[in-house]
Amino acid sequence: MPAAERGPAGICGIDIGGTGCRVAVTTPTTGPSTARVFTGSGLRIGGAGLDVEDLMLTLEPLVAAARDASGARSLDTLVLGAASLVTLLRNAESVHAELHARFGAHTTVLASDVLTSHIGALSAQPGVVVAAGTGAVALGTDHANLWQRVDGWGHLLGDAGSGAWIGARGLEAAYRSYDGRVGGSAGLLDRLLERFGTPEDLVRSVYTRQDRAAVLASFVPDVAEAAAQGCAVALGIFRSAGRELARTATAALVDGLPPRIRWVGGLFEASPDLLEEFGQELHRGHVSLDLAPGEGTSLEGALQLGAATALGSGPEQREGFLSTQHHWTGRPQQPGRSA
Amino acid sequence: MPAAERGPAGICGIDIGGTGCRVAVTTPTTGPSTARVFTGSGLRIGGAGLDVEDLMLTLEPLVAAARDASGARSLDTLVLGAASLVTLLRNAESVHAELHARFGAHTTVLASDVLTSHIGALSAQPGVVVAAGTGAVALGTDHANLWQRVDGWGHLLGDAGSGAWIGARGLEAAYRSYDGRVGGSAGLLDRLLERFGTPEDLVRSVYTRQDRAAVLASFVPDVAEAAAQGCAVALGIFRSAGRELARTATAALVDGLPPRIRWVGGLFEASPDLLEEFGQELHRGHVSLDLAPGEGTSLEGALQLGAATALGSGPEQREGFLSTQHHWTGRPQQPGRSA
Repeated sequence: MPAAERGPAGICGIDIGGTGCRVAVTTPTTGPSTARVFTGSGLRIGGAGLDVEDLMLTLEPLVAAARDASGARSLDTLVLGAASLVTLLRNAESVHAELHARFGAHTTVLASDVLTSHIGALSAQPGVVVAAGTGAVALGTDHANLWQRVDGWGHLLGDAGSGAWIGARGLEAAYRSYDGRVGGSAGLLDRLLERFGTPEDLVRSVYTRQDRAAVLASFVPDVAEAAAQGCAVALGIFRSAGRELARTATAALVDGLPPRIRWVGGLFEASPDLLEEFGQELHRGHVSLDLAPGEGTSLEGALQLGAATALGSGPEQREGFLSTQHHWTGRPQQPGRSA
Repeated sequence: MPAAERGPAGICGIDIGGTGCRVAVTTPTTGPSTARVFTGSGLRIGGAGLDVEDLMLTLEPLVAAARDASGARSLDTLVLGAASLVTLLRNAESVHAELHARFGAHTTVLASDVLTSHIGALSAQPGVVVAAGTGAVALGTDHANLWQRVDGWGHLLGDAGSGAWIGARGLEAAYRSYDGRVGGSAGLLDRLLERFGTPEDLVRSVYTRQDRAAVLASFVPDVAEAAAQGCAVALGIFRSAGRELARTATAALVDGLPPRIRWVGGLFEASPDLLEEFGQELHRGHVSLDLAPGEGTSLEGALQLGAATALGSGPEQREGFLSTQHHWTGRPQQPGRSA
C-alpha cells in the first residue's frame, strides 16, 4: 500500500443480499448519511455455497468507485454485511484474505446483515430489529451478553412472514383457483397469468432457477394490489405475515432487553394490513412497547460498525460478538483474531 | 433390429420419479403382475430442465435387464411414465428419438405418471386417482372427454398434503421451537437434530441441493413418529395433509365422473391420522362415495397402457388423450403423431 499514508483513510461499508449490493465509503469529513452509495448485483449461492470469486468481482468496481468518490486514499476498515453469512459462508478466512488483498483494508469485518441492520436501525442501542424483505429475520441484542437471532432460515424452512413467504402463499392461492380447489383466489390467478404466463410456464421457470426465493417474492406487489382491491385471500396472507413477523420479533425480545423494537426492510411498506397486524400483535403482547421503524439502513449500520472498529471501540472488542459468531474480524497481523 | 423377429415382442413399462425408477417388461406369457421389476435412481432436474442423456444412462441397464428377464427379443411398445413430465419435459421429440434409437421399440409413449397411476389404480375405469409421495397430484378422467388434473405443482407452489409439504411443516415447527417462536414442537426439533445435525447444518445442505423436495420429504417418518407419540403439532400436520389431499381429490371429481376415488402412494401409509382425515373429509362431501386404495401400481398402469397401445386399443387412440397432453405417442414412421 504505497499510497496508504498520503490521504485520509476511509471506512468502507458493504451491504449485500440476494437481490443487490450497496457500497459506501466514509472519511473524517463525510459521514454515513452523506456518503455516496454505489449499487450492484446480489449474492449468488451456487452448489458449493457462496462463490468468493464472484463476490469479489461484484465488489471490486463498487469499492473502487466509492473510495474515489469519498476522496479516501486508503481503507482503514472494511465491513461486509451479508445475508445468510452465518450459515452459508464456509470459509471466512479466505474472504478476509481476499478483501485484504484486493482492497488493502487494514481491518476487515464480516457481519451478518441482521447485525448491521440492528446497528443501523437502533444506533447501537440495545433492543430488537426485525428485518423483512425477500427473507425475514430478527436479532435481539444488547451488544454484550444477550444475542438472540430468530428465524432467517430461508424460504423452505422458515422466513415466516417474508416476501418469499407471502409470494408463495399468493401463488398457492392462484394455483388453487386454477385447480378448482378450496382456498383459491381468482384475482391472484389473473395476476399470476399476467406476470408469469401460464401456470405451467411458472413451474418450468421456478424449479430451474437458483433465485427461487426472489421469484416467489416478486409476486408480493400483485398480492398487495389484490389486497388493496378487497381480495380476502390476499388480505389474509398479509395479516398472517404481520402476525408471523410480530412473533419473530417477540421471540428475539429476550429477558434483559428493553422493550424496544425497530422494523426495517421494504416488505413493511408493501401493505398497510401487514404493518397494522404486526403492530397490533406486538402491542397485545407487550404493554409498554417502544415500536418504530428503524432509524438508519443496514449500510449505515455497516459504516457505523466500521467506524467503531477503527476507533477500537467496536462491539467486536467485547466478548459477546466473538462468542456468538455474529461477525468475524480479520487483521493480517493478527490472524488469530478471526474465529 | 436384426433380432427383432426371432422372439416374442415385449411391452416395456417405466415408472420414474424424483426418488427412483422402476422398469418391467411383459410378454404374451408374463403379465404385469408377474413381470420382474428392476429398480434404479430417479430423475435429476438440472438448470436446463430434464437431462435426457442422464435419463437414458439410468434407463439403459434397467431396460436391458428387464427385457432379458422377460425372454423378449425385441420391444413392441415402451411406455415412460414420469413425474412432472408435462411441465418439465421441453423436448418430447428428442426423448422419443432417444428411446427408439437405444431400445428399438416400435412405439414409444411418454405419459405423466399421474396417468399411469390412474390406469394402474382403476384398471382404466373412469374415476379419480390421487397420488401422494414426495409430491401430490390427482387426475379425474373417463379416458374420453373428461380430463381434470389437480395440483402436482411442486413443493414451492403446491403439492398440498404431500411428503415435501408435511416435511416442510414439520421442519418449520422444529425451527420455531429452536427460535422460541409460537407454534414450535420440541419433539420435532429433537428429531431434526438427530437426522440433520444442527439447524445450521440443514440450512447449509438443503439450499445447495437439487433434490430439495426429497430432503423435505425425508422428514416425514420423524413427523409420523412424533404424531404416534402424541405430538399435537405433528398430528395437526398429518390431519391438515389428509384434508388437503381430500380437497385435491374432490377438485378432480368433475361433473360427469362416477364418484370413484382411489388413493396410491406411500404417503397414505405414513400415518393413520392422515388416512382417517382424508376419508372423513371426502365422505363429508360425497354421500355415496366409492373410496378405496388403488388396485395396481403406476408401473402396472404403464404396462397396461403399453399393452393397449400395442393392440391399437389404447386410450391414445381417443381424442381426449392427445388433446389434453397427458401423454405423447411417438412412432418413427409417423413423426406427426407426436404432439
